[in-house]
Amino acid sequence: MRPFKGTISLDEARAIIDRAIVPIERTERVALERASGRVLAEAVVSSADVPPFARAAMDGYAVRAQDTSGASRSAPRTLHSIEKVFTGQMPVQTVGAGQCIEIATGAPMPPGADAVVIVEETESDGDLVRVFAPVSPTQNIGRRGADIQRGQTVLQPGTLLNASRVGSLAALGLTMVTVFDKPRVAILSTGNEIVEPGHPLAPGQIYDINRFTLAAVVTENGGVAVPYRIAADTIDDLSRSVDACLEQDILVFSGGSSVGERDLILDVITARGEMLFHGIAVKPGKPTAFGRITGKLIFGMPGYPSSCLSNAHILLAPALRHIARLPEQIVRSVTLP
Amino acid sequence: MRPFKGTISLDEARAIIDRAIVPIERTERVALERASGRVLAEAVVSSADVPPFARAAMDGYAVRAQDTSGASRSAPRTLHSIEKVFTGQMPVQTVGAGQCIEIATGAPMPPGADAVVIVEETESDGDLVRVFAPVSPTQNIGRRGADIQRGQTVLQPGTLLNASRVGSLAALGLTMVTVFDKPRVAILSTGNEIVEPGHPLAPGQIYDINRFTLAAVVTENGGVAVPYRIAADTIDDLSRSVDACLEQDILVFSGGSSVGERDLILDVITARGEMLFHGIAVKPGKPTAFGRITGKLIFGMPGYPSSCLSNAHILLAPALRHIARLPEQIVRSVTLP
Repeated sequence: MRPFKGTISLDEARAIIDRAIVPIERTERVALERASGRVLAEAVVSSADVPPFARAAMDGYAVRAQDTSGASRSAPRTLHSIEKVFTGQMPVQTVGAGQCIEIATGAPMPPGADAVVIVEETESDGDLVRVFAPVSPTQNIGRRGADIQRGQTVLQPGTLLNASRVGSLAALGLTMVTVFDKPRVAILSTGNEIVEPGHPLAPGQIYDINRFTLAAVVTENGGVAVPYRIAADTIDDLSRSVDACLEQDILVFSGGSSVGERDLILDVITARGEMLFHGIAVKPGKPTAFGRITGKLIFGMPGYPSSCLSNAHILLAPALRHIARLPEQIVRSVTLP
Repeated sequence: MRPFKGTISLDEARAIIDRAIVPIERTERVALERASGRVLAEAVVSSADVPPFARAAMDGYAVRAQDTSGASRSAPRTLHSIEKVFTGQMPVQTVGAGQCIEIATGAPMPPGADAVVIVEETESDGDLVRVFAPVSPTQNIGRRGADIQRGQTVLQPGTLLNASRVGSLAALGLTMVTVFDKPRVAILSTGNEIVEPGHPLAPGQIYDINRFTLAAVVTENGGVAVPYRIAADTIDDLSRSVDACLEQDILVFSGGSSVGERDLILDVITARGEMLFHGIAVKPGKPTAFGRITGKLIFGMPGYPSSCLSNAHILLAPALRHIARLPEQIVRSVTLP
């Protein structure tokens, strides 16, 4: 059996991991329907005004503001309604002096009109509309480009997309968007005693737990979990498994990182790359390792499931979020004094 | 144009929604890999002890505790090592008086031994092992069933599965688990002016935004978003669309719930079921409606995108979480004084 050469503090371990991390550069195109929760990899510049026309912000009558000057309940102004415009329609008429056009919220403003009188401030009798309150120019109008202006940078690369931001992309008429890839994380359970759930246990065997808990932590923190078959404690099998796992961006293994004679995976990694630390002064989870093979990061978690999970939360999750370009995890509960 | 018959307060609206909600009963079987974040629909009872055997909790030597009595650095006890047991192996020998078996963390305890001396408290010279500290019976042993006992209810129905709980299910050797279905939410954008992104805009038209923002809110809050094609403002098209959407558990539509003459969707819903409210005294988002058709809930959101999104967060999200049996949303940021 080989003792730990010396443990390092949790803060030192974090600093070593932070220095080794490189945020992912690979991108992919995804449909807008699947873009929420992803990190934008391009600047999005609007090629048009949104809305592309001035429109009524309220139901009512499109008017020339000057025609409503001085209007009140006791001295209404009377206008002639010459058309009705619903949303999705273009007005045909131009509003002239003494005229108005009935208009629905969101419908395009007719030429000649420069304001909308809300329906609650009017009373109609056939084509005659009595207006009970004055409006000023632009009142109750959403101007062209009010939401987004042509040429405006709507979203910067690195932005985490959410419902509202996906809505902005939809407003531009986009259907696809370029986002950073999710880091792909190989998950490797090691140990002769470890058996895939669903199979019977022979004496001395237990079920693989870490593959499932690690996959859940990876998924929650912006990664894609790619489980590999359980590796036996032989140099040959571990070598084959580690080589296969290096297809992915990151390798997280569990078990075999303690100080037993059979902790062969550390030898396998050292032969291919470098160990950056092995052994952290925390309980549980002392036998945690971190290394690198040809630029790919290797996290070694304790085999004992609760230690594996707690160290995955403490070390793997923040590292993965950083690689995935996600913001740090929000504190999920706060105890107030 | 038809005025609101009278708005209700946000609290009243919430109370009406709460009374109408029924948590989902439908269940499905999912693979353990996809179970995190889902709500368990069955009690899970263990059919075996976990671990299924007593095992070493530390690397060291399996001993009879009485043989180490009084051991110290200056007066070590010397034992004969008769075997090595790694994880996944069953010991062949029985530990007799004056004997020990070298054992790795997680390996099954050999018969005869009742404790483990950690390797750091020993020194070996061939088969002779000097023990520098006494151990008491059961010391450094994980007993059979220490994690989970046979017959124990491991998880109750209604439990939200997370990494740790999925780990408990894996420990039992399960590969599938019964969870509550995610509520399926039909998303329907209405309005003659609304166009699917990716298509050119004719004059007076704008792109559909609400379908995307509503889908993101639905997905974030435990639902499955099922978008339907945009419906035109005609009784015929709205009727067809509403009927199609009723295939899902819930219908969320946007637009057409204001007081314009063409707010025909409210007529379509009233003809098929009941409106429970229409009009909330909040800004933005007054034209929000809620109804029910043959037991299926209908949420009507304002057409204006920011109002639609804010009311979806305020009213739809908590209702959906309740239906999906998820806990209330965690407050995402807390401003401390």
